[in-house]
Amino acid sequence: MLLSGGLDSTVCLAVAAAEDPRPLVALTFDYGQRHRVELDRAAAVASHYGAEPLVVRLDTSAWGGSALTDPTVAVPEPPSPGRPAGGAGVPATYVPARNLIFLSVAMGVAEARRLEAVSLGVNAVDYSGYPDCRPEFVASFAATAALALQRGVQGRPVAIRTPLIDRTKGEIVGLGASLGAPLALTWSCYRGGVRPCGRCDACALRARGFAEAGVDDPAL
Amino acid sequence: MLLSGGLDSTVCLAVAAAEDPRPLVALTFDYGQRHRVELDRAAAVASHYGAEPLVVRLDTSAWGGSALTDPTVAVPEPPSPGRPAGGAGVPATYVPARNLIFLSVAMGVAEARRLEAVSLGVNAVDYSGYPDCRPEFVASFAATAALALQRGVQGRPVAIRTPLIDRTKGEIVGLGASLGAPLALTWSCYRGGVRPCGRCDACALRARGFAEAGVDDPAL
Repeated sequence: MLLSGGLDSTVCLAVAAAEDPRPLVALTFDYGQRHRVELDRAAAVASHYGAEPLVVRLDTSAWGGSALTDPTVAVPEPPSPGRPAGGAGVPATYVPARNLIFLSVAMGVAEARRLEAVSLGVNAVDYSGYPDCRPEFVASFAATAALALQRGVQGRPVAIRTPLIDRTKGEIVGLGASLGAPLALTWSCYRGGVRPCGRCDACALRARGFAEAGVDDPAL
Repeated sequence: MLLSGGLDSTVCLAVAAAEDPRPLVALTFDYGQRHRVELDRAAAVASHYGAEPLVVRLDTSAWGGSALTDPTVAVPEPPSPGRPAGGAGVPATYVPARNLIFLSVAMGVAEARRLEAVSLGVNAVDYSGYPDCRPEFVASFAATAALALQRGVQGRPVAIRTPLIDRTKGEIVGLGASLGAPLALTWSCYRGGVRPCGRCDACALRARGFAEAGVDDPAL
């Protein structure tokens, strides 16, 4: 499980945990994100599900390029530059190659630990316009990883599961609530701080999701 | 440039530097490898070519699985378990998903820094049987990266260059010598220590390459 401590990855973990896989590893990246409170939330969610926490440090701020890791780039507020994936619609919070890197590391862990599958909570409906959240990226990555790994060339590739890919934010909230996911522990805000800012793209998307699902956000 | 400080990546850098690209970034990974002398050699080679050094730490030993990062797994000596890529032929020095991870990070750097291309010194002739050194992996990765990156969806993907992919180890040594590459600075041995062990797979491959090229190894 790729687990950021956010809403989507937590619901994705809830889906995976419902199948009771053993072992269950929660892989979290400390990538220099300004919303470092995510890391504590990820640890709490992993503990909730009895998943083995594995935190990998990779300081992407060393090469910059994103509002999430570079203090000199502002976190945008809606109306954002645009929702459609690609082109001018990719917002400043995009971290170059983030899911490519995270999935690659997950494949290394899966190969080393002989895990069957990697799950991640990307979704391509109500999302932030990042190209590496699209299903065509995930499908292509799976094929590439099969060629990269010993297991892949042996005909037993690591499966990639994206149970949320076709769901709206409202459906994700509803699914999480129905599975009893610890939504109160999750953190979405792109800014650091003690409380969510309520104004950034991530806060706006989250609020819309809870409103659509008719669920009160237990984290507020 | 992915630069390990070994023979292949150094010759690959020599090829790239001959085109005088600006800026030229040498990306080196501190991944917990036991042959950490590589890191010093990479810094020396980058300096030789006036490349900006960028060292990224990623402790793959945290999840284990390779003789190169796990002190409890022995470094094999020839005759190795086999040279053909895949299946039982993948040796214990294989680091799960290493090139997948390294290339993914390189793509993030290239996107953030607006670099045109990533070069890496993989070769599929005289190599160690790692699945992620094969041309079919590199080609698939390029297609996946184009889908992951903002630049890719804008129709300007980052190029991937593998100038050594079809060359024998002897040809690589000869090419490096003809380009004046600082082969004396390079390190191939999988073991740490002050001098190459002369017995591991990497030492054996290197010795064969210099012998084929009719060149004395200046690092010995």
